[in-house]
Amino acid sequence: MSGARSLEDRIRAIEDRLEIYNLIASHPPSADTGGKEHVAASWVEEGVFDRGEGLSSPRGRDAIAGQVRMPEHQAAIERGLAHFTGLPHVAIDGDAAVVTSYLQILVPQTQGDPVEVPNHGSSRGFRVHRMTANRWELVRTPQGWKIRRRTLRQLDGSEPARAILRAAIAG
Amino acid sequence: MSGARSLEDRIRAIEDRLEIYNLIASHPPSADTGGKEHVAASWVEEGVFDRGEGLSSPRGRDAIAGQVRMPEHQAAIERGLAHFTGLPHVAIDGDAAVVTSYLQILVPQTQGDPVEVPNHGSSRGFRVHRMTANRWELVRTPQGWKIRRRTLRQLDGSEPARAILRAAIAG
Amino acid sequence: MSGARSLEDRIRAIEDRLEIYNLIASHPPSADTGGKEHVAASWVEEGVFDRGEGLSSPRGRDAIAGQVRMPEHQAAIERGLAHFTGLPHVAIDGDAAVVTSYLQILVPQTQGDPVEVPNHGSSRGFRVHRMTANRWELVRTPQGWKIRRRTLRQLDGSEPARAILRAAIAG
Repeated sequence: MSGARSLEDRIRAIEDRLEIYNLIASHPPSADTGGKEHVAASWVEEGVFDRGEGLSSPRGRDAIAGQVRMPEHQAAIERGLAHFTGLPHVAIDGDAAVVTSYLQILVPQTQGDPVEVPNHGSSRGFRVHRMTANRWELVRTPQGWKIRRRTLRQLDGSEPARAILRAAIAG
Repeated sequence: MSGARSLEDRIRAIEDRLEIYNLIASHPPSADTGGKEHVAASWVEEGVFDRGEGLSSPRGRDAIAGQVRMPEHQAAIERGLAHFTGLPHVAIDGDAAVVTSYLQILVPQTQGDPVEVPNHGSSRGFRVHRMTANRWELVRTPQGWKIRRRTLRQLDGSEPARAILRAAIAG
Repeated sequence: MSGARSLEDRIRAIEDRLEIYNLIASHPPSADTGGKEHVAASWVEEGVFDRGEGLSSPRGRDAIAGQVRMPEHQAAIERGLAHFTGLPHVAIDGDAAVVTSYLQILVPQTQGDPVEVPNHGSSRGFRVHRMTANRWELVRTPQGWKIRRRTLRQLDGSEPARAILRAAIAG
């Protein structure tokens, strides 16, 4: 399958893949700390972040990066916001790539009795607040892979989230 | 360790690994959308899917792929079925590979009061319904890496799940 | 960016990355089965495991490996302890590497009514007991990449966990 490609081309495709894994893995740390500079460095200038119905959907790198410094987002961070990403599916096509990922958002439980697990402390536990399907459309730039468009939809049994997942396996 | 191997061999081993990551990452999207064609393309014809006690364990690619279109499975999808896979452990040995992964199955909560998290909407949250240890036995075919056998066991403190996990670190 | 590096150097950097992914992926199977030998083989002799306030923080490979065989830890395993790791962020710098990961610890629910999900069995579900930010400081040794220091902090809205996450994206 890869016989006709040069070693250089194959290594570059592998490096692309690993760079993209780190780009996706660095999203939770930036979202959970209000890392505005990192968010800005991850997007192209004309990027669009489509969060679906009922949530704000910023357009443009400055608006997207600015969102993690808004008082509402800071309040979520103070409460213990935690994004958690599974293993993403990555499809690279030349200078563009599509990543499909599942993403959980958890927060500490504020009610109920603490539970003790031996050797693992006492805790009220964490609540999986949101569970979303994400489509990340990436482009290669001279400064590395950047996000051009991110679309997320809640995995609540409705069609939009399934459409994102179906696109990942349609190829 | 790798001194004696050619660059070609080493690159091929790396490409194998990345192809296997995508195979594992494409499982949740196919399970959560009823992607029968994708499931069929992921298995060898004589594949066996061993789901353990109390759940159906289809044998053969057609039965395995057909399962995601059964009315019960479609009902789970309508409810908001979401598979969530962590970072898998991958051990490749020539034309065979063993992947060991943890897999969560989540569904939207249908009871309780919605909770609001600032900038992250209001939700009843998600329930982690199942948590399993998975062993995927893969083989290289002319059409890429395919699943020959998948064994999963519930992480409920019983021995079978631990046996799967122990095998991953026994090497 | 990589133009000046030899193919050999680039392939080695890629192999490092994949070896590190497997090191991180093999942690949950060893923690959840009491795999003392595997834990010992994953650490350098003078390793430090800093678990933060309220939990024991063993120093030295023998103490770290011994911990998974302590009665308290065995009791957690009997109950159904399950570590679940997301996609980690990996930064390699020569013979050292820093991995930043989110880690969930789940246990089976022991209270409440079982819920049936079609085609996915009946279960009381799983509780996310802990949710931590982890910093793994690794070193290359003649026997492969090993853990020199691991620091974890609970994602409960407090500063120490955020400091770990911020360090991952500061580079």
